[in-house]
Amino acid sequence: MDTIMIVELLEQRAYHELKEQLGTIYPVDVAALLEELDVKQMIVVFRLLMKEEAAETFSYMNSDVREHLINALTDSELEEVMEEMYIDDTVDVLEEMPANVVDRLLMAVTDTGLRMKINTLLQYPEDSAGSIMNVDYIGLRKEMTVAEAILKIRQVGINKETIYTCYVTDKRKLIGHVDVKALLTSSDTRKIADIMETNLLYAHTYDDKEEVANMIHKYGLIAIPIVDKEMCMVGIVTVDDAMIVMQEEATEDMSRMAGVAPNEESYFGTSVFQHVRNRSPWLLFLMLSATVTGVILAYYENSMLKMPLLIAFVPMLMGTGGNCGSQSSTLIIRGLALNEIEFKQVLRVIWKEIRVAVVVGLFLAFVNGVRIYLMYDQNILMALSIGITMVAVVCLAKMIGATLPLVAYKCGLDPALMAAPLITTILDTSTIIVYFTIVKFAFKI
Amino acid sequence: MDTIMIVELLEQRAYHELKEQLGTIYPVDVAALLEELDVKQMIVVFRLLMKEEAAETFSYMNSDVREHLINALTDSELEEVMEEMYIDDTVDVLEEMPANVVDRLLMAVTDTGLRMKINTLLQYPEDSAGSIMNVDYIGLRKEMTVAEAILKIRQVGINKETIYTCYVTDKRKLIGHVDVKALLTSSDTRKIADIMETNLLYAHTYDDKEEVANMIHKYGLIAIPIVDKEMCMVGIVTVDDAMIVMQEEATEDMSRMAGVAPNEESYFGTSVFQHVRNRSPWLLFLMLSATVTGVILAYYENSMLKMPLLIAFVPMLMGTGGNCGSQSSTLIIRGLALNEIEFKQVLRVIWKEIRVAVVVGLFLAFVNGVRIYLMYDQNILMALSIGITMVAVVCLAKMIGATLPLVAYKCGLDPALMAAPLITTILDTSTIIVYFTIVKFAFKI
Repeated sequence: MDTIMIVELLEQRAYHELKEQLGTIYPVDVAALLEELDVKQMIVVFRLLMKEEAAETFSYMNSDVREHLINALTDSELEEVMEEMYIDDTVDVLEEMPANVVDRLLMAVTDTGLRMKINTLLQYPEDSAGSIMNVDYIGLRKEMTVAEAILKIRQVGINKETIYTCYVTDKRKLIGHVDVKALLTSSDTRKIADIMETNLLYAHTYDDKEEVANMIHKYGLIAIPIVDKEMCMVGIVTVDDAMIVMQEEATEDMSRMAGVAPNEESYFGTSVFQHVRNRSPWLLFLMLSATVTGVILAYYENSMLKMPLLIAFVPMLMGTGGNCGSQSSTLIIRGLALNEIEFKQVLRVIWKEIRVAVVVGLFLAFVNGVRIYLMYDQNILMALSIGITMVAVVCLAKMIGATLPLVAYKCGLDPALMAAPLITTILDTSTIIVYFTIVKFAFKI
Repeated sequence: MDTIMIVELLEQRAYHELKEQLGTIYPVDVAALLEELDVKQMIVVFRLLMKEEAAETFSYMNSDVREHLINALTDSELEEVMEEMYIDDTVDVLEEMPANVVDRLLMAVTDTGLRMKINTLLQYPEDSAGSIMNVDYIGLRKEMTVAEAILKIRQVGINKETIYTCYVTDKRKLIGHVDVKALLTSSDTRKIADIMETNLLYAHTYDDKEEVANMIHKYGLIAIPIVDKEMCMVGIVTVDDAMIVMQEEATEDMSRMAGVAPNEESYFGTSVFQHVRNRSPWLLFLMLSATVTGVILAYYENSMLKMPLLIAFVPMLMGTGGNCGSQSSTLIIRGLALNEIEFKQVLRVIWKEIRVAVVVGLFLAFVNGVRIYLMYDQNILMALSIGITMVAVVCLAKMIGATLPLVAYKCGLDPALMAAPLITTILDTSTIIVYFTIVKFAFKI
């Protein structure tokens, strides 16, 4: 099934066949196909979808396409979509929409219970566990029997979002969990209190969603229960949402590390204007910082006038310093994100980087020394000066590259801000000062 | 529970209490604690663990610690561990160990059936779905009744790795799947053939594990069935393994993007020597490439001697070019990894980048022009020349940064290789040529 086929079926008005074909593909794929149609066609196709598929497809669309659709749908169509969606998807959708669209969507929900639930979830901060949790889960009481529990499951139903772990509460407080597996393999008359597991992993509504995703990853969970300050159970976060969070966080880190302000839309989903806004601030800041480097370089003008050859080594030294620094900062930033490195290990990091820097520095200095010796009339003093500068620059680069992200982390900033662009600009200046100090001393200029 | 407490309990020989305490924490946390003990203590504590916890803890250890442990354990202890581990974890462990250790571990397995299974799995290439799959799953036949199916589940058991989806096969060929949910809500006498879903997602044993992880992510699955060339069911890949793959791939991409050869161990788990080996090749290559930039810069020596001020703008122009290029390359590399961008969209990418580049370039040129006009005695010609160079450099940088990863992808290379370090080195040279061509023309030098 592809866009061309859909357009053909639409032109032939073969709606019945189109509807059948759409039934065989997954909502996430339907959403991708709809995005390639023009608005009118997209709306016709969307109306052909079954109620449940329509709601799921709606949740997978990008926000531009979704807005067109919302404008075209009637209030009762919107109501159907809103009531069929999983509530965590509803909240995601609403968080991305402009205020007037949110109002229209919320007005379409006539079920006041559902509207209250949505409003509660919308109040959690955007990065919190509360904002990605689902409030539908299977709750059991500890005095229930296994037979009663199974009956409840049959009534409530199990779906992708409620999964196969039931949570046991006592006066709304979370006290344990039972897998459907345990229910299936226990006799009907046993009490839930006797078979439940009490060794619980849980998170709080206001915990950072990244931490919650890390817990799910670390412990290999399918879902984690979310409690409020009084330990009352309020919802669950499932592994599929954790995966989305982890991918988003990795994307965010990579963007920040390249000096791009992250946003949640895809590359093509981001407008040219938004791309400009995301990229300009760092470029401007770095451009202005680099003028400092330029001023310092110009300050050594006299040395260069006396010995113009010196300029030839500047790009190499600055480049190597920047690369060494960004290698270290990247490894530390990623280690922090994966909880493999903590701030208290800063001395261990420095000790490791020093040893790496010395070996790498000597190696690069040696190769480069040989090259200079051969290329510039066996000028040993030049080979030596550049070699010493190289070792110093590599050591400095690895130190700064490794410690700045740790310091940022300690200060509550995102370590990813201390990545290549900033490190490089800082190192450019340092490299030039180190270089000219050494060559001025060596050649007495 | 922390290391200090464990050491204290060990010194007091309070083994019983230690054992109880260990029972309350998760294997992944036990593994982290063991890594901080000295080898002798670690072995004592490991022997206190329950059989099942011991096996899971073993699978979470880093490979150094694990090797110490293997050397200390008896053959029968090793056999217990090997037989308790989930088979996909066993394969992961074996893939990381040196050959002699692998031999000892395999010899410890006396169950020939298990040994054959392990050997089969070890033969799949390291990046394939086969290498991360689990061969234990609940298989049903289409002629079974619901009651027979539930009976089978009770016998086989459900665990973290087998999950709640049963796969239906006909002469070993995968023909459908049934959720435990459907079994619970259907009458006992119905046939599996009538209630199974036939709209199947699956992957092949030799598919790239990253693609399989992306499928699990995209469709929000808990597991995906893996089939061989004849569509025979051979195993499943579960969401927890998909998460690990996704995190590893993101880490690998970030390392490559910083010019570091990726390896699977953590930052501290990698030796100094290995860090040097991972980082040196790119540094060496980039250092030597940068000498080309240096030679070209030296070529414009005469212009600089006539007008020494020119050198002051070099770091800023080179820096901005590098930053612009790495912004674009990062966004494209990540978009490719997330399947948001495909090669066939190369023209769309270029069109977007050109527009972004023109706006960003004009903005930076304007700010910088004003600065130069004010700082250098209202030198309009200088402000204009640098401004024009800036726009040209930004456009060039965005083009090269955006297209190189796409070209690498098309050629079957990892796009992450075309990231900041390489892009910057290429752009440094281009920037200098563009800059001096423009100023030589402007100032007739």
